[in-house]
Amino acid sequence: MIYFDHAASSYPKPKQVAEAMMEAVNEYSANPGRSGHHLSQIASQKINETRKELATMFGAPSPNHVWFYQNATMALNQALLGFPFQEGEHVVTTAFEHNSVLRPLYRLTEQKKIDVTYVEPNEEGLITENEIEMVITAKTRMIVVSHASNVTGSIVPLRKIAAIAKTKGIVLLVDASQTAGIIPINMENDDVDLLAFAGHKGMLGPQGTAVLISRKDFSLEPIITGGTGGDSELPGQPSHWPERYEAGTLNAPGIIGLHAGLQFIKKQGIEQIHEHEKKLLELCMKELESINGLTLYGTRDLTQRVAVISFRMEQLDSQELAIILDEHYKIAVRAGLHCAPKTHHSLASIDSGLVRVSFGPYNTEEEVKQFINAMKAIGEAFILAGE
Amino acid sequence: MIYFDHAASSYPKPKQVAEAMMEAVNEYSANPGRSGHHLSQIASQKINETRKELATMFGAPSPNHVWFYQNATMALNQALLGFPFQEGEHVVTTAFEHNSVLRPLYRLTEQKKIDVTYVEPNEEGLITENEIEMVITAKTRMIVVSHASNVTGSIVPLRKIAAIAKTKGIVLLVDASQTAGIIPINMENDDVDLLAFAGHKGMLGPQGTAVLISRKDFSLEPIITGGTGGDSELPGQPSHWPERYEAGTLNAPGIIGLHAGLQFIKKQGIEQIHEHEKKLLELCMKELESINGLTLYGTRDLTQRVAVISFRMEQLDSQELAIILDEHYKIAVRAGLHCAPKTHHSLASIDSGLVRVSFGPYNTEEEVKQFINAMKAIGEAFILAGE
Repeated sequence: MIYFDHAASSYPKPKQVAEAMMEAVNEYSANPGRSGHHLSQIASQKINETRKELATMFGAPSPNHVWFYQNATMALNQALLGFPFQEGEHVVTTAFEHNSVLRPLYRLTEQKKIDVTYVEPNEEGLITENEIEMVITAKTRMIVVSHASNVTGSIVPLRKIAAIAKTKGIVLLVDASQTAGIIPINMENDDVDLLAFAGHKGMLGPQGTAVLISRKDFSLEPIITGGTGGDSELPGQPSHWPERYEAGTLNAPGIIGLHAGLQFIKKQGIEQIHEHEKKLLELCMKELESINGLTLYGTRDLTQRVAVISFRMEQLDSQELAIILDEHYKIAVRAGLHCAPKTHHSLASIDSGLVRVSFGPYNTEEEVKQFINAMKAIGEAFILAGE
Repeated sequence: MIYFDHAASSYPKPKQVAEAMMEAVNEYSANPGRSGHHLSQIASQKINETRKELATMFGAPSPNHVWFYQNATMALNQALLGFPFQEGEHVVTTAFEHNSVLRPLYRLTEQKKIDVTYVEPNEEGLITENEIEMVITAKTRMIVVSHASNVTGSIVPLRKIAAIAKTKGIVLLVDASQTAGIIPINMENDDVDLLAFAGHKGMLGPQGTAVLISRKDFSLEPIITGGTGGDSELPGQPSHWPERYEAGTLNAPGIIGLHAGLQFIKKQGIEQIHEHEKKLLELCMKELESINGLTLYGTRDLTQRVAVISFRMEQLDSQELAIILDEHYKIAVRAGLHCAPKTHHSLASIDSGLVRVSFGPYNTEEEVKQFINAMKAIGEAFILAGE
């Protein structure tokens, strides 16, 4: 089979990922950070190593600034629902956000009466720093942006947005679920305040893992409270990090699997992975453009895209096309709205949805060619049928 | 080594657990419930099978009433913080609760101005239904009890408490983290409204898994919001279950590992597992009682205990004793407050903490005997040293 659904979850994983998880479960599945014995300490150490590596990779001030969650949705909820917004404060975000940002923001508009502005992409399909700057008000407390859209793959100009946020004293939260492990991000150099991402996409770890990194203390309120191993007498969460933001037992095998994914990325080189995926993107875009009746979405400037392509075909429902690709050609893609309704409103594809292909480090040019051949065959069949 | 820390996390796991997880990661780590293709469907089916088995095992009305979380803390937070309490309403709970219950309740006293009564154990160290009934007021909206204490192992009279709750129209939330997989619970027959438990203790699954089961619709507000695969156009969570309560990508390999743990329990028989652990408990309690200077906590009626024993030794700090057991005897136990401060207040052990041993299905009588010999040797050495 050909797997082109990396924007949802990467597959396959480096073989070390499952091996590391198996070892964690079979050799030291004691509770990390809860008991003092040898086995519990091994589990803790492995988790702390992962924290340390992530801090280094993303330019966090220390490993304790790195917090683990079950998915990026929860990491983003912690950043947004936990943020000490006051009534009437304002958030600037974009039409390219995932529901993991849109829905917590919607909740905040109801519960804390904040205002939210959704910046639309320009004609080329790009979110620009100018559009963001234009809508900032004296009340703007936070800017939330997806580093890259999970529908069109378009990348935001992160440093330029960060410069605006910094100048105006606005907190910048970045959802890097589509770029972590593919495009280098350094919170210190790039002036990112809060960074959230999934562990099971470009980071090549297993599902059940995600990260929130807070570069400074923004007085976030923990969204869940409970056991923290130490400081048990306190009625609420302790003040020290990461315990304050990590109530309950951590997903040790998942985090250890993520560690293995991270080692693979370091060994391959994040630039090499990105370069490889860009080549597939370029080949695929070029070939798709030549197919009759096929409409591509998003910018044609491939330096401003990750390897995510959405399109539709005339006279062919997106879900139907995805099913044909899956069943007849064994090519896995994702059709629909991709949990990003405002993106599809922007693209005027909210009724039909789009078909999305997204590439990972193990995909090959040969696979892209097979996909193109499939698309050509489908296109011809339907154009013939339609005539 | 000898592992007696099952109340924190069970170890070892049945070998099928890591195998199932490895297969999930290596063979079908696509995103469950997000894309329509074959690989995503396999992941979804496996998760739904687990939901179905859990619903059957715990007497839930349907698989959709079973929701997955990263840990029991989050499941309990969902049940408590999500519950539509009104200001001035009252919750009855016990001094035997874990911080995963105590801390969310503390938050609710601050945020929603609810009142909480903590029922103390009787002289025998047991929570009784009478004590609970006595503190119920016209404002009591919920009773929250740990099915068994994670410090003394004492079991609450669940059916009797449930009968009181039912009669008075009070919602009953049970934290079964210490009993799920060891003592049968049937929400329908036992009249339990909300049931939360960890997947990585008696359920023999991996860390990163936990469950909340809601027998009816209590209008719980989802504590996190975000992507749900379908219904992407809605500004908030969809109304249907389980999606409403499960925003973001699920921990597929973890849940599939939990499924394997569950198969093992079904095959062994939950009664047989309980019987085995009870034998170890009996042997250990009897032998520990005979050790000079050792104080045991909790009821001596072993029919009202799970296989969790806490104790202290005169003239020997609990942490130190745990370290000696770990380093010199390779016996893993847990010392301290076990995230249950009120329990230790009740037992007057809040300053020193206690040493806890807890057994699992793979422990043997031989291991208990080795532990007893170690304890005798330590006791003698310290009594000699003290004289």
